[in-house]
Amino acid sequence: MSLRFLSNTERVALMGCCAGRRSSSVAYVKSLGDFLLTRIVSSKAASHHQQRKNFAKEAARGSMASYQPCLSMETLNPNIIALEYAVRGPLVIRAGEIEKELEKGVKKPFTEVIKANIGDCHAMGQVPITFIRQVLTLVTSPSLLDDPRFPDDAKERARTILKGCRGGSVGSYTDSPGIEIIRRHVAQYIERRDGIPADWQNVVISAGASDGIKNILKLMICNVGGKPPGVLIPIPQYPLYSASLAEFGINQVGYYLNESKNWSLDISELQRAITEAKKNCEVRAIVVINPGNPTGQVLPRENIEEIIKFAYKERLFVLADEVYQDNIYAPGSKFYSFKKVLMEMGEPYSSMELASFMSCSKGYMGECGLRGGYTEVVNMCPKVKAMYLKAISAMLCPTALGQSCLDAIVNPPQKGEPSYESFIKEKTAVLDSLKLRAKMVADTFNSMEGFSCNTVQGAMYAFPQITLPQKAIEAAKSEGKQPDVFYAFELLESTGICIVPGSGFGQKPGTYHFRTTILPQPEKLKSMLEKFAEFHSQFIKKYS
Amino acid sequence: MSLRFLSNTERVALMGCCAGRRSSSVAYVKSLGDFLLTRIVSSKAASHHQQRKNFAKEAARGSMASYQPCLSMETLNPNIIALEYAVRGPLVIRAGEIEKELEKGVKKPFTEVIKANIGDCHAMGQVPITFIRQVLTLVTSPSLLDDPRFPDDAKERARTILKGCRGGSVGSYTDSPGIEIIRRHVAQYIERRDGIPADWQNVVISAGASDGIKNILKLMICNVGGKPPGVLIPIPQYPLYSASLAEFGINQVGYYLNESKNWSLDISELQRAITEAKKNCEVRAIVVINPGNPTGQVLPRENIEEIIKFAYKERLFVLADEVYQDNIYAPGSKFYSFKKVLMEMGEPYSSMELASFMSCSKGYMGECGLRGGYTEVVNMCPKVKAMYLKAISAMLCPTALGQSCLDAIVNPPQKGEPSYESFIKEKTAVLDSLKLRAKMVADTFNSMEGFSCNTVQGAMYAFPQITLPQKAIEAAKSEGKQPDVFYAFELLESTGICIVPGSGFGQKPGTYHFRTTILPQPEKLKSMLEKFAEFHSQFIKKYS
Repeated sequence: MSLRFLSNTERVALMGCCAGRRSSSVAYVKSLGDFLLTRIVSSKAASHHQQRKNFAKEAARGSMASYQPCLSMETLNPNIIALEYAVRGPLVIRAGEIEKELEKGVKKPFTEVIKANIGDCHAMGQVPITFIRQVLTLVTSPSLLDDPRFPDDAKERARTILKGCRGGSVGSYTDSPGIEIIRRHVAQYIERRDGIPADWQNVVISAGASDGIKNILKLMICNVGGKPPGVLIPIPQYPLYSASLAEFGINQVGYYLNESKNWSLDISELQRAITEAKKNCEVRAIVVINPGNPTGQVLPRENIEEIIKFAYKERLFVLADEVYQDNIYAPGSKFYSFKKVLMEMGEPYSSMELASFMSCSKGYMGECGLRGGYTEVVNMCPKVKAMYLKAISAMLCPTALGQSCLDAIVNPPQKGEPSYESFIKEKTAVLDSLKLRAKMVADTFNSMEGFSCNTVQGAMYAFPQITLPQKAIEAAKSEGKQPDVFYAFELLESTGICIVPGSGFGQKPGTYHFRTTILPQPEKLKSMLEKFAEFHSQFIKKYS
Repeated sequence: MSLRFLSNTERVALMGCCAGRRSSSVAYVKSLGDFLLTRIVSSKAASHHQQRKNFAKEAARGSMASYQPCLSMETLNPNIIALEYAVRGPLVIRAGEIEKELEKGVKKPFTEVIKANIGDCHAMGQVPITFIRQVLTLVTSPSLLDDPRFPDDAKERARTILKGCRGGSVGSYTDSPGIEIIRRHVAQYIERRDGIPADWQNVVISAGASDGIKNILKLMICNVGGKPPGVLIPIPQYPLYSASLAEFGINQVGYYLNESKNWSLDISELQRAITEAKKNCEVRAIVVINPGNPTGQVLPRENIEEIIKFAYKERLFVLADEVYQDNIYAPGSKFYSFKKVLMEMGEPYSSMELASFMSCSKGYMGECGLRGGYTEVVNMCPKVKAMYLKAISAMLCPTALGQSCLDAIVNPPQKGEPSYESFIKEKTAVLDSLKLRAKMVADTFNSMEGFSCNTVQGAMYAFPQITLPQKAIEAAKSEGKQPDVFYAFELLESTGICIVPGSGFGQKPGTYHFRTTILPQPEKLKSMLEKFAEFHSQFIKKYS
């Protein structure tokens, strides 16, 4: 039973009925359809219970009834059934199958799959930053600390990290929020970035930003004043948010970004979204992704100020997803952290609760596979913070090598150190190339019939809108697919290009988009865009 | 507000009232005390809601009321408040403070803190296995693949892993269940271990076993037949289980291990526990830790067969925590995996659902900081498995370096390969030394007045019972501490030895235990045990 196409209300209803979170959720189940759905699942779970009872009786009598699964779709966590993560959804699974078919020699109109679905830099040919890998190598094999082929600054970083590891080994558990010296380096990095003091004890290292984000979101699971919790997220959004909120049974309160103003954030839209949501839930937090994923906008400082004022007025915890802070391309765009703006606004705003997320996976380093990241929590109530730290302690610690990677990023070679020149050269080369590609992608899409693509000011993605012919929409419907999903599948099967349909991120009803990364290396990106243009014109011809 | 001393029923009540899981949980709230507790928390949340409303009104009027936190103890996820993880609890926090005091030159009756609280091998001086670190170094710095100082077998492993990484870099995201070739190597490892086929598609790599265990447990969050879910866990248990069940709002159904029979598992006790629990919940799964943590027993094959029959009769999903499978010390003890036994029992047992967990953190390798581990799921309903895989996909992937470490463990040097001799020598040295230490610890404790310690047949811990003088129990009470916690704090302050009180794992009411690892290196362990004996005799004198 696929629940992919259920509405949010339906999902909440479904969650409520099975997960024992009935009373408050069911109060919001309004339509007959939802009601029936609830009944069906309830009665399935009940009949499963009866089956189990009968089975136990039979087994006790020694009768060897054939085994029925303990864990079936009827008795599985309904929040897990409801959650969706399009970046790794059915389209990507199909792309993997196609890759295997190609390996086996199956003939296709293309020779390779281009995975433009995920911000996976090294997979697309980006070369690791030498200094980062040197530090990692040295902490892994401390015997190489004597090797003259490694530069002194990398050795110094490695020695410092190892001194922070119990027994001098990255094989030891670290403190749950991370190695103290690395947390201190992160705090210094934030101070340099913002010109605002940062307390290392507010820095919590995590296995990538995703882990950090989930650890903050789960704190919000609490009915307040008899209402279930809700969290504001942008639409389009990065589906980690929708997936996590679904898993946690928290109401997703979407606010639409303004596509006609380069995906900017209108306060009136925030107000509309929260006013509507308040009928059903207690909105407790707001997520802002800046630079935007999948939308690529970079918020101007004034916009951030407005959002902070709104969050203050509505008493919202601010989650600032700032993992693309190094990825700024458009002339005139500049990254301002929410913390910097909030602190510079002074009281009462500078007392607001905020969590900011950063990752080793993006920026110029793109070390996705190492799973390093951090959360800076600001103004969290000390008792709550103690509980937050307690909750993460049961998972022991984030990977010591992911932490070491983070250290190399927040404590890079300084002027005068042996690796400085080459580090800057490598870093600049990656960012300059991404800047060119950001422009190339948007320009190419805008030259295509029925495409409209905003400027990619930052991050790693373009999210163009496409106009689909009515016949294509009908063909999609007849296959039971969303039109943008239908388009993406046709693109994949014809060209090997794997993108993510806009419905995976959310989009205004009746509009169609997709997300593509700007990560393929320049030559490959060029040929990908040519193939894309050719496919698109044939698609339009086919369905017009 | 600390909820540490609440009963399980009280916690469920508390969860229910705040987290919107009211109806079904509250049905089981029986006592007036629970009822009052529920009311208190409800009314706090309600008054917080009123405060927020007032605040919003004031803010709208432009009145700059002083900021109240969005996230307070009244509005924080109550499951997070309820969960406890003693291995990193207040005692360990105090141990960390003492370490800092020592660094600053504060005079103490000892010169170092001995962290016997956690199975952290390298922190206690165990040396990393050379082969593992070589493989990790080579995948991190592929340029070293030409370096003659690295052996060919390590190079071959590294090349194979890199071939499995997109773009040939460990910096790329891997598939969410892990790199295919490493999953295949894990399956081959399981086949060699059990002599039973293993399907690589049933292997899911995780960030340590903890991550894998939580991902399976969360599938169980579902009311069945109007009852909340419950999971059987041993008492004493490893507190990841109690913490995760508390976080997920799943009823913890404890079954006592039989201390008088070397912590063996009595089926009659399982029957007692499940019969009692069925009044309140639907028991859906059983956790067995073998070799035992904190108890060190190794289950004989017949015992495993009995448990499987019990699980079959009661239709339970079996979670086999087998992370200590390499740590077997006692003569006559042998590790049998649950999968092997279940498969060899034939139908209907061989169709039962099982998840088995393994980790890079234990055994002879002890690479805790690298966060590698795997889950093998057996006979999981295919639709459920698809949902399970979907759920983990939102977290992208486990660390590629943790996976590489796992690969080196499951695909170690073979006879005839250049690293074989040294690998076996290093591995044997660690395990032989642990064997001696396991005996040394139990023997020493048994020579101490009021101590009784079972044979440490396996794993990395001793869990002795201690008889505490009545005066000590009263002194503990007057400080508001559990007697075993009181004892552990006195031990820490007097000697620097950090252990975990038995109450952190669960113990029969009126009995007192603690867990210590057997991990300090032999000389240090000897001196630790001497200090311990001296402390204990003075403690007895002081309170008699």
